[in-house]
Amino acid sequence: MMFGVDRLEDLSLGAAFLATGGGGDPYISLLAAQAVLAKNGPVELIRAAELDDDAHVVSIGGVGAPSVSLELLPSVDDPAIALAAYETLVGRPVDAVVSFEIGGGNSLIPLIAGSELGLPVVDGDGMGRALPEAQMMTFSIAGVSPTPALALDYAGNTATFQTDSTLTYERHIRAMAAAMGGMITTVEHPMTGREVQSCVMDGTVSFSAELGRLLRERRGHVHGIVEPLRDLFADSIYGDVHHLYSGKVVDVATAVVGGYDIGRAVIEPFGADADPLVIDIKNEYLVARTGGHVVCSVPDLICVVDFETSTPINAERLRFGQRVSVLGIGCPEFFRQQRALDVVAPQCFGFEHDFTPVEDLTAHHQPLER
Amino acid sequence: MMFGVDRLEDLSLGAAFLATGGGGDPYISLLAAQAVLAKNGPVELIRAAELDDDAHVVSIGGVGAPSVSLELLPSVDDPAIALAAYETLVGRPVDAVVSFEIGGGNSLIPLIAGSELGLPVVDGDGMGRALPEAQMMTFSIAGVSPTPALALDYAGNTATFQTDSTLTYERHIRAMAAAMGGMITTVEHPMTGREVQSCVMDGTVSFSAELGRLLRERRGHVHGIVEPLRDLFADSIYGDVHHLYSGKVVDVATAVVGGYDIGRAVIEPFGADADPLVIDIKNEYLVARTGGHVVCSVPDLICVVDFETSTPINAERLRFGQRVSVLGIGCPEFFRQQRALDVVAPQCFGFEHDFTPVEDLTAHHQPLER
Repeated sequence: MMFGVDRLEDLSLGAAFLATGGGGDPYISLLAAQAVLAKNGPVELIRAAELDDDAHVVSIGGVGAPSVSLELLPSVDDPAIALAAYETLVGRPVDAVVSFEIGGGNSLIPLIAGSELGLPVVDGDGMGRALPEAQMMTFSIAGVSPTPALALDYAGNTATFQTDSTLTYERHIRAMAAAMGGMITTVEHPMTGREVQSCVMDGTVSFSAELGRLLRERRGHVHGIVEPLRDLFADSIYGDVHHLYSGKVVDVATAVVGGYDIGRAVIEPFGADADPLVIDIKNEYLVARTGGHVVCSVPDLICVVDFETSTPINAERLRFGQRVSVLGIGCPEFFRQQRALDVVAPQCFGFEHDFTPVEDLTAHHQPLER
Repeated sequence: MMFGVDRLEDLSLGAAFLATGGGGDPYISLLAAQAVLAKNGPVELIRAAELDDDAHVVSIGGVGAPSVSLELLPSVDDPAIALAAYETLVGRPVDAVVSFEIGGGNSLIPLIAGSELGLPVVDGDGMGRALPEAQMMTFSIAGVSPTPALALDYAGNTATFQTDSTLTYERHIRAMAAAMGGMITTVEHPMTGREVQSCVMDGTVSFSAELGRLLRERRGHVHGIVEPLRDLFADSIYGDVHHLYSGKVVDVATAVVGGYDIGRAVIEPFGADADPLVIDIKNEYLVARTGGHVVCSVPDLICVVDFETSTPINAERLRFGQRVSVLGIGCPEFFRQQRALDVVAPQCFGFEHDFTPVEDLTAHHQPLER
């Protein structure tokens, strides 16, 4: 299927929703992708099943603190420069590119690279959402080596990495992201077509565009979109949509720590006498609690949207006084298997609670839905 | 000239003296070099003048916090592994290796690599002492690009770097040293023979071995070695030797901050009523002050030796109660030219004073010499 410039805005809007607060504001990446696709024409979006078994597929995207990308803007040229440098490094042409993270701007980077270099883009990604660390990718969970990998910074400097351990790679790439200005473009996780098929979150690019279309067409009060969202997600790799809370942001504090945006947001109800909702943030919205109970937790998705327009709000855009609704969505089944929970369970982020699916949490503790 | 295993201990002892407190304790590197040279025979030590104009010369050594090398021990194999990986990276054989830092264990790493790969080692280095950052090398000061460069960690993981800026390279390599466990082997600053000739600190490997021989043969009370040291240094690229202070270490505090050993040592006289000597440390002994006056300052050399045996003492080995003498030595003329002072003056380390040569400082403020 050809993916044209006219669908980029919907893809970007859906990706901002799936970013669960992280992934970086896709706005500038959207402008870059629009410029590139307007120049080059549509990109070929292919299903993973269409890949040759031995195709050379690499993932490409941005790594760093999302808040940095508000000032160190994504570049039109960097994805293609990074990919060309990667081909030189490994001495082999790349056959297709894939997003490692559908949530946020990283949904668009592969399209920019694919368009510039005339390569197909896989309709899928390695997270199905946004997550902060490399070992949390489905590619890594399935045993794909993250290297050889290449990082490109805003000034054209590069670094390359070789290690068998994804945890080591994550430590190295995170250190370099911080040293290289807080946000870099990486080419990593080289895979065969067969490997992509075994672990990609299938169809998430086109799903994100459909999701964005829905959010655009039904733009308005959150009450109007929950049912349409439930219908859309019912026919997807994700679980059910749960409306967890609506209220006003009364406190939000984040700081860039170790290359991450770390923080907490507190949301209070519109006048009603009820417990606030507290969301813990590490780039993404990770855990939502109210009245001493967890109501949704990573790896399930926590999405914050504007109460009046249902526009998704990234963590680095969250501000005091915003009126928001919080939705909890079941993650893809892939992340609920043990080998995935070994790296994405709440404990992996420093929390003490075990993962409980959002549908069970909301069954036991009726969230504030208004 | 062939450099055999029998001269390694002297080289190591001289290098510990020239390390000015930093450079890492050379003891384990000495054991590694002894094992390798005992197995392979002597290494060819060549003067820079013997290099072909277009010879492919690279510098190799360890980068990180010296204190880390007390626990994360230097490896026998890493220098050759790093150099072989570098040749693969650039697709060109290396003709000779050179130390970027004669002070400390980095005097020995090129000998290990050269011995294992059958390559000559240049009799010289890129600092004439030890200094904490890449842009302080004579190679960088002379305009040599630090990259392509390669880093190897203790576990065999590698990273490579490409940038035109030495300051950027320093930031990147420092971040990777911290991420890779605190100490890495790097291959960097590729040069032509002509470039080496233009900026190498000439003859420092054989000088360091001569210095070590003197310290070994005259081992004993510091009063017995100052005159022989003055004679030896008089016929070298260095300036004069000044006995700055003798006393007892009464306070020493260091911490690993940002990949460096940062700290301060305080030395009080043996019973006499006189001002203490205070030494500021950033891996190396950088500034010595007494009575509110600077008596020796980077880029001149500050060397701390045991009062009874004249054995040099590295900063990470400095302890409360040690009886020490402090010597100040004029740095090579190369470091007193403006383009060098631009990157090694006291201000480059966060101090406020201008550089004044040790011979002028000691002429105006009579140091405590006993």
